[in-house]
Amino acid sequence: SRSINLAVIPGDGIGQEVVAQGLKVLNAVLPQDVKLETKEFDFGAKRYHATGETLTDADVEALKQYDAILLGAIGDPSVPSGVLERGFLLKLRFLFDHHVNLRPSKLLPGVATPLAGQPEIDFIVVREGTEGPYTGNGGSIRTGTPHEVATEVSVNTAFGVERVVRDAFARAQARPRKKLTLVHKNNVLAYAGHLWTNVFNEVAKDFPDVTTDYIHVDAATIYLVTDPGRFDVIVTDNLFGDIITDLAAAVSGGIGVAASGNINPSREFPSMFEPVHGSAPDIAGQGKADPSATVLSVALLLRHLGYEDEAARIETAVSADLSERGDSVRTTEQIGDALAVRVAG
Amino acid sequence: SRSINLAVIPGDGIGQEVVAQGLKVLNAVLPQDVKLETKEFDFGAKRYHATGETLTDADVEALKQYDAILLGAIGDPSVPSGVLERGFLLKLRFLFDHHVNLRPSKLLPGVATPLAGQPEIDFIVVREGTEGPYTGNGGSIRTGTPHEVATEVSVNTAFGVERVVRDAFARAQARPRKKLTLVHKNNVLAYAGHLWTNVFNEVAKDFPDVTTDYIHVDAATIYLVTDPGRFDVIVTDNLFGDIITDLAAAVSGGIGVAASGNINPSREFPSMFEPVHGSAPDIAGQGKADPSATVLSVALLLRHLGYEDEAARIETAVSADLSERGDSVRTTEQIGDALAVRVAG
Ligand SMILES: CC(C)[C@H](C(=O)O)[C@@H](O)C(=O)O
Ligand SMILES: CC(C)[C@H](C(=O)O)[C@@H](O)C(=O)O
Repeated sequence: SRSINLAVIPGDGIGQEVVAQGLKVLNAVLPQDVKLETKEFDFGAKRYHATGETLTDADVEALKQYDAILLGAIGDPSVPSGVLERGFLLKLRFLFDHHVNLRPSKLLPGVATPLAGQPEIDFIVVREGTEGPYTGNGGSIRTGTPHEVATEVSVNTAFGVERVVRDAFARAQARPRKKLTLVHKNNVLAYAGHLWTNVFNEVAKDFPDVTTDYIHVDAATIYLVTDPGRFDVIVTDNLFGDIITDLAAAVSGGIGVAASGNINPSREFPSMFEPVHGSAPDIAGQGKADPSATVLSVALLLRHLGYEDEAARIETAVSADLSERGDSVRTTEQIGDALAVRVAG
Repeated sequence: SRSINLAVIPGDGIGQEVVAQGLKVLNAVLPQDVKLETKEFDFGAKRYHATGETLTDADVEALKQYDAILLGAIGDPSVPSGVLERGFLLKLRFLFDHHVNLRPSKLLPGVATPLAGQPEIDFIVVREGTEGPYTGNGGSIRTGTPHEVATEVSVNTAFGVERVVRDAFARAQARPRKKLTLVHKNNVLAYAGHLWTNVFNEVAKDFPDVTTDYIHVDAATIYLVTDPGRFDVIVTDNLFGDIITDLAAAVSGGIGVAASGNINPSREFPSMFEPVHGSAPDIAGQGKADPSATVLSVALLLRHLGYEDEAARIETAVSADLSERGDSVRTTEQIGDALAVRVAG
């Protein structure tokens, strides 16, 4: 019989609330014969304050035992900026080699967007997750003096770029439009840009049926608001991907519905699925958070583990719920309940 | 008697057309007693193809003699990506120490925006222009092999950050709302982020009447489409500034009206003013380009040289022209003529 062994990290702020709904929908969608085992981990601000730990070696070993990780949100204003982000979130992405950071954007009918004219939006961003300016390389000298020099080094390897570009080509090939856009800034960041562009053009030869395109990251932000329909699959580096996926989420229904997967396609280590939004401490504990982004992240998790039908059922349910939502105000739990009913039905 | 000694670089594509209108309006707005002398330079793709040169030492010496530089656009698909950008545009920004890259965004009444509900938008971005990931530091090893490693180094100095932050605070102080937002990614780019944040907080003490705010660059792109009214003055690094000002232009009327100044506030070297848009080779020579961005860049140029009244007259003229434009289709020249009449009136 089949089983899913899931590590659950509710985290901080609204993380707790949205993860509860994610699990509820997961339970509702899974067939009887699939045994779901979950184990909750207490990473986040509370543990950091209590112990000074963000993620220990023992934690990492423990997490390795699971098929996948579901994360709510990590971060709190009481913790200095960057401590939990780098000490937990990025650390895990790097240690578990989550090199495919997958972020779909789809504007569903009836869903509010800040853009006029309700444009068609349906693309996915494949953001590199283990290189670029996120490696923590860099430093500073004469720190805190008028003569300080601080550097950040973006590290890009042919190995790292090729595997994520190849993954993105395969995803583009599997979609009806079969179009892949490389987003970079190769006219300025010439060394990294040259590597990305060369690898992209080389890998393209193995996917002759995929249409390719290149856009500078600055221009990409323009297209995301004036002509988002031009995008099908985007592949880009870690930092550019961070920036454009927040914008992509904003134009396609908001971060309340933006899901993401930190994926290790080889499955050597567990992949981690999380909403794009943060811990939103201002609305935590009030039942105001929209669990849809977490529920959609559960769909990405299921697809990654091979449960394609169940993933699709969740996406259909969220889609229907959003379209029929109108101006109704529901609690986090009510939305979760409604989705659980839909996926079971 | 007063005089302006202006270096004019029409450049490539639509650069020629829009600069002609910029000069027309400049001539029309200047009082009789101001002597305007212009000298045209032939930088750009044509010269590069003919001579292999982008900007020689002699060119740089020649340009130093002018009070300011008006640039149309540089770039053509016939030239490999980056050659003219780095060999001319960025080279000049660095050599002439254009550390204040000024980019105002104002959505004028009646002007189309991709955003629903015609929000109020009126902010300026002060983008650092001589540091960050734009320094050309970096390199690659095993280039072109499966073992290539390519790096880009973002270089940030207390000296460079402080002067641009101070400039931004002064600009914020001079505006009614007196609000300055630092945009960075200090939770990930910790060394540079620490420097920027520390310097920002230190300089803030000298401007107690300015309200301050900090936003991560990814979140900033969300606010630019969901709540652009929250911004008054933004200060940010070179790359983040590049990205968010294209988005800012897109939401506040498009790059057809986005002006910019590459400013050396000390006036040790001439400052350079240019539209944010590129050379748009697809519409070059057809009289389709909107010269408004160039004309507004002329206003920034005049303000930099102390001609505040004339700058304001140009801005009022463009504002009126845009508001009354409706669906009329006019040529580049017709728009320039209309603006020249307005500023003279
Ligand atoms: C919290 C932060 C480190 C993270 C990132 O920059 O990747 C977040 O913005 C994201 O996009 O997942
Ligand atoms: C052409 C390019 C080098 C330039 C930049 O990146 O600064 C442009 O995008 C700009 O914003 O002026």
